[in-house]
Amino acid sequence: MGDFLTTEELEGLDAYWRASNYLAVGQIYLKRNPLLETPLSLADIKPRLLGHWGTTPGLNLIYTHLNRLINQYDLNMLFVAGPGHGGPAVVAQTYLEGTYTECYPSVERNSNGLLRLFRQFSWPYGISSHVSAQIPGSIHEGGELGYCLAHAYGAAFDNPDLIVACVIGDGEAETGPLAASWHSNKFLNPARDGAVLPILHLNGYKIANPTVLSRISEDELSALLYGYGYDAYFVEGDEPEQVHQALARTLHTMVLKIREIQHAARQPSRNEAPQRQLWPVLVLRTPKGWTGPKFVDGCRVEGTWRAHQVPLANFQAPGHVQQLEEWLKSYRPQELFDADGALLPDIAALAPTGHRRMSANPHANGGLLLRALDLPRYADYAVDLPTPGSRRAEATRVLGAFLRDVMKNARGTANFRLFGPDETASNRLDAVYEVTAKAWMDPLEADDLNLAMDGRVMEVLSEHMCEGWLEGYLLTGRHGLLSCYEAFIHIVDSMVNQHAKWLKTAAGIPWRKPVASLNLLLTSHVWRQDHNGFSHQDPGFIDLVANKTADVARIYLPPDANCLLSVADHCLRSRNYVNVIVVGKQPEWQWLDRDAAIRHCMAGIGRWDWACHDDQEPDVVMACAGDVPTLETLAAVTLLREYVPDLRVRVINVVDLMVLQSSSQHPHGLADATFDELFTTDKPVIFAFHGYPALVHRLLYKRTNHDNFHVRGFREEGATTTPFDMAVINHLDRYQLALDVVERVPRLQDQRHAAQARYWSMMEKHKLYLIEHGEDLPEVLNWQWTPAP
Amino acid sequence: MGDFLTTEELEGLDAYWRASNYLAVGQIYLKRNPLLETPLSLADIKPRLLGHWGTTPGLNLIYTHLNRLINQYDLNMLFVAGPGHGGPAVVAQTYLEGTYTECYPSVERNSNGLLRLFRQFSWPYGISSHVSAQIPGSIHEGGELGYCLAHAYGAAFDNPDLIVACVIGDGEAETGPLAASWHSNKFLNPARDGAVLPILHLNGYKIANPTVLSRISEDELSALLYGYGYDAYFVEGDEPEQVHQALARTLHTMVLKIREIQHAARQPSRNEAPQRQLWPVLVLRTPKGWTGPKFVDGCRVEGTWRAHQVPLANFQAPGHVQQLEEWLKSYRPQELFDADGALLPDIAALAPTGHRRMSANPHANGGLLLRALDLPRYADYAVDLPTPGSRRAEATRVLGAFLRDVMKNARGTANFRLFGPDETASNRLDAVYEVTAKAWMDPLEADDLNLAMDGRVMEVLSEHMCEGWLEGYLLTGRHGLLSCYEAFIHIVDSMVNQHAKWLKTAAGIPWRKPVASLNLLLTSHVWRQDHNGFSHQDPGFIDLVANKTADVARIYLPPDANCLLSVADHCLRSRNYVNVIVVGKQPEWQWLDRDAAIRHCMAGIGRWDWACHDDQEPDVVMACAGDVPTLETLAAVTLLREYVPDLRVRVINVVDLMVLQSSSQHPHGLADATFDELFTTDKPVIFAFHGYPALVHRLLYKRTNHDNFHVRGFREEGATTTPFDMAVINHLDRYQLALDVVERVPRLQDQRHAAQARYWSMMEKHKLYLIEHGEDLPEVLNWQWTPAP
Repeated sequence: MGDFLTTEELEGLDAYWRASNYLAVGQIYLKRNPLLETPLSLADIKPRLLGHWGTTPGLNLIYTHLNRLINQYDLNMLFVAGPGHGGPAVVAQTYLEGTYTECYPSVERNSNGLLRLFRQFSWPYGISSHVSAQIPGSIHEGGELGYCLAHAYGAAFDNPDLIVACVIGDGEAETGPLAASWHSNKFLNPARDGAVLPILHLNGYKIANPTVLSRISEDELSALLYGYGYDAYFVEGDEPEQVHQALARTLHTMVLKIREIQHAARQPSRNEAPQRQLWPVLVLRTPKGWTGPKFVDGCRVEGTWRAHQVPLANFQAPGHVQQLEEWLKSYRPQELFDADGALLPDIAALAPTGHRRMSANPHANGGLLLRALDLPRYADYAVDLPTPGSRRAEATRVLGAFLRDVMKNARGTANFRLFGPDETASNRLDAVYEVTAKAWMDPLEADDLNLAMDGRVMEVLSEHMCEGWLEGYLLTGRHGLLSCYEAFIHIVDSMVNQHAKWLKTAAGIPWRKPVASLNLLLTSHVWRQDHNGFSHQDPGFIDLVANKTADVARIYLPPDANCLLSVADHCLRSRNYVNVIVVGKQPEWQWLDRDAAIRHCMAGIGRWDWACHDDQEPDVVMACAGDVPTLETLAAVTLLREYVPDLRVRVINVVDLMVLQSSSQHPHGLADATFDELFTTDKPVIFAFHGYPALVHRLLYKRTNHDNFHVRGFREEGATTTPFDMAVINHLDRYQLALDVVERVPRLQDQRHAAQARYWSMMEKHKLYLIEHGEDLPEVLNWQWTPAP
Repeated sequence: MGDFLTTEELEGLDAYWRASNYLAVGQIYLKRNPLLETPLSLADIKPRLLGHWGTTPGLNLIYTHLNRLINQYDLNMLFVAGPGHGGPAVVAQTYLEGTYTECYPSVERNSNGLLRLFRQFSWPYGISSHVSAQIPGSIHEGGELGYCLAHAYGAAFDNPDLIVACVIGDGEAETGPLAASWHSNKFLNPARDGAVLPILHLNGYKIANPTVLSRISEDELSALLYGYGYDAYFVEGDEPEQVHQALARTLHTMVLKIREIQHAARQPSRNEAPQRQLWPVLVLRTPKGWTGPKFVDGCRVEGTWRAHQVPLANFQAPGHVQQLEEWLKSYRPQELFDADGALLPDIAALAPTGHRRMSANPHANGGLLLRALDLPRYADYAVDLPTPGSRRAEATRVLGAFLRDVMKNARGTANFRLFGPDETASNRLDAVYEVTAKAWMDPLEADDLNLAMDGRVMEVLSEHMCEGWLEGYLLTGRHGLLSCYEAFIHIVDSMVNQHAKWLKTAAGIPWRKPVASLNLLLTSHVWRQDHNGFSHQDPGFIDLVANKTADVARIYLPPDANCLLSVADHCLRSRNYVNVIVVGKQPEWQWLDRDAAIRHCMAGIGRWDWACHDDQEPDVVMACAGDVPTLETLAAVTLLREYVPDLRVRVINVVDLMVLQSSSQHPHGLADATFDELFTTDKPVIFAFHGYPALVHRLLYKRTNHDNFHVRGFREEGATTTPFDMAVINHLDRYQLALDVVERVPRLQDQRHAAQARYWSMMEKHKLYLIEHGEDLPEVLNWQWTPAP
């Protein structure tokens, strides 16, 4: 086989690679003397040496070759660096392309800029050592491993012209989310979506161990990738010239293969039914820390786990400064940069230009491309409600109709998708299937429902994949919503955590434009998982989100369907947030008509004066947040009417949980005066809460009346039982709430024993009925709100 | 190929399968008339129909055939039901074997018992619909999907005679943790460990969708499994007789294959170096809801997603009661049970007996087999400390020496392993490598360190696999510890959550014996991830654990190495807890000598009177929890000595976080009187906390002096910076703490402005120095404790 690259091409590629490696090593080590104009000395070297060299030369090699491919085929390509801890490589590449200087003009393309580039890396108030939101061209952090491939697929959906090159480290490949994400190709439609070009980079080692995929036989590895639905191309070597030739040739073949698949899928008149094709994947096997020191202090470094971070670290050791100098000079910087520190023009000319530069691809700054959704008037979907509590509805089913039309309106722009782990119908959002199907590329069978290659609902039984796809979709400028069983959203705690960190960082970067919020609809929640039992009962995800900063985290607990509509509309319009909406799917009583719901949700909290005869000077405040707590609270109000007719109760419902925090802590926080007016400064407050009670306490510990708050919520007591009994075993039920009131209102102290006796007799009746009938008491099942007299 | 089973064998197997299916359907539907002695009527049917029929007949088929295999080869076999939501199947099997009645004598083996068996299922105060701790023979819940295979491998480690049959649903197979767990075979040593027999059950559907693995070609699927390192055996069909024959024949072959692999590995004199072998995996393709209704209301049910839960649900519809009766009668119960409801003796005789019954395998009730670790005297490993603050040590390195000898002492019992995602050395526990290596079955290369087939440290870059292995190892009666970067333990939030639920449930079951606690060592923590940046900075895992019930959750924040030793020793002796230990790995000042550390950790909290000149009637209490907050607090004390020499400060250190909760909420909670004595009832308390401040507020909101607590902790402000600057940007640094004191002590109000000015000037100095030098101020780096005058 003759050479694929001409000598000139080969030399150009190699020079570009050397330039990027030089810049990477410089970032890790140098704080002075960036062009080695004087002999390297200890004073030139940073005091704290941070960074990951091991993966860096591989990332640079791939990036350099992809540049060539982009130029040759005029490709619209995005770069996802799974080993994002190889930050020096990606920073170097964006600097060589000029994008870095465009974003950060003080980092000029000269020796002064080089100095800044080197110094800022992993330096206080500089840039992080991982690829982060600070780096142009990136949509993926790479600090926590596992999500690069799902992000890449998310970016590719609905971007037919885009190729997302995704480098997967062999360490990351061991993680669960990554291992599952390979199957994303079953959900990518080559006719309408872009392509993902996975590059599995086997450099052989993690921090301290070999990697699994680098040590299994090539036979097993290629079978594994074929089993995942890919056609593996192998490039391997530790001799640059040979690797350049093989890599260039192979990438060329792979791009043609991608085009062939896309062309076949996009032919307007196909005779055969389209079939999922094997997409190409590149397996690149090169030494870890390639081109770095081969030995340090007698130990082999290049090609081993010792190259993972900083191969030379102890510069007190004799010869190490010199070894670093030799390493840097091995890239022959004088052949790469002019005397002023600018990249030589013939090398610079090898990079793509304008938006073809991967670092300047607008998809990586999704806010640039973001188009607001054409949202239908959500009020048109409202439940018609003559008076509070006069009918039941399934909140998520009502939302489903709205989402159906969101989906319908977005057909032209193709910028909205719905995500869920096999639960869209179970979560009662299935109205969307009237206008679209679930994406599915594999063969269909007779009883399949709502599956199609061009479906826009993304279902796979992996919360990780759903979340990763959605994040990639959002960060490239689109919109979406993920619905999930409440308990199982914990599976992606760490992903949401990392996404929130990304959003917070991105918000501080002027050139990053706002992206659509991450919208999480948590339904099938703790209070209505009685049939699935304890493993399905956990409301703790909102605790995690409440720990995120106030500029990112939003938590909504709509009490009914109309409030859900209002909240969902708001969330779909919002930008740069993590919005969590918690609401049930079961038929429940409805409380607010269209207009009342809009007002209530705009305020985030409200006094429900219709619930009580006189709530002006209340004896007690009954607060609630969440649909089931609201139901139990209102039922308790009707009990109290009967037990203590002259009691003045005030009902307060909280939709936006963050109103509870002080306004100094969260922008949604109520001013203290408003809070005190609502909750009084001295009356008992019985607070029925959807989640763990501790969350309420921590949100409002600064409030005047805090010591009088008595919060009921989930006490980690779960079981397979009935819906009402879930409330009972967690002390959130109407009888308990009514008893709480009697016990805490001073003037009712003499009724306390009678109330307790009544409570215990009711509990006995409840338990006996439950055991006998397996159902809730008729008075609970048939309870209905009656207006206050 | 002739028939494998004789007619008699075939009929026996089929009868047993029918019996188990009958019992499963009975559990889902019947509350009366268990033997259909009278025509089925609406009154016999439960009012709430819950359960998952779809996976049930497949589980029953597999279980029945495994029984045959156990008898034939006298196998020691454990059953892990990945589709644990098919609870009715597993309950039915344990009942047929008699184990259920042994555990729950009221569920007799007669018609009375049958009635109880049916009624209790998914009935309030009965049993859950998922396989749970309530069910004998189980170590795996199956409510949250993804972990069955990791649990199975964890159970097999160090149990050379055990075969763990693990049924993997094709839904669960889509999850990330499961997709990664196949590679567990690279860490299982056939010479010393047992075998895992994975059974991938392709019934084709999830809740509402086909599954990925059931729709890819058999070619891709067998390549995938080969790529994972398995040899796939396929059994497929929807005709019982044919499937029985093929399944029996195939399982027979597979067991011989397992024995062959084990025999080869265990031969005392091998000539060749052992190599990882391909383990057999069974792919069983049978219809979802097999033997259930083929059609309901004109829609196909058997073999489709419609069979997932309850195929017949609406008994108001005409003919449905009759259809259920026909379904039940299709199993020909009169050929299975005698008139009294007992299984006919010749069918019952097909089950294994005694401990060979999978439901009575002692490994599934690990506490039965648990042997306490032979722990070395931890005090022998203590850092020698003449006075507080007189030397530095790396806490986890000190622990490493102790763990090394724990490991050494456990060599004979082979009941302790250390788990970690490629971080044991990074977390400075590498002393263990003096006595063991990391388990690794693939080829070795020259620069590999500490890898061996018989290694007892389990490293793979998947927190999911590490956690799953450890859970499986613990639940089968062994001990272990997982070390993890603090931020990334969030990856397994949901797994720890589910394990805590398991422990809580198991603790209420008399026949379940206590198992060793789940010990999580979180190091490389938020305050010392300055080099890795924001993505690596998150202390929120303890918030999650604090939501678990008090009988399960334990959180420790040792301030130094000696306290870590004491805490670790305690955790390794404890049972049935989730113990979280958070401590850094960097060289830090040490505070307590051996004896002081023991006393301090036994109390969980302590007044450090050595830190202050006079702490009897303090002006202010300075509390701290966590190593870095302790350091900053003591440094603040030295600053205050200088600024306000006459100030009376009391220093309190918290090791056991749960002492903060009231004693009514947690057994470790301090009595109010003790708490008030320590923290005063009216003095300001400046609390420097390792995690998010809100956690402290929620733990102590009931305490008298709560309103005077001012908590500093992580504010979600992360960056790539220096260690001290991490404290600064989160307002936890010594200067801020000293300022907090001046601002909050009433008699210092006139010094407030001067203190603020001093603070700001120090901050300016800090930032300028940082930017210039990239290092912390010399007075911070060189700070050392000096005893109070």
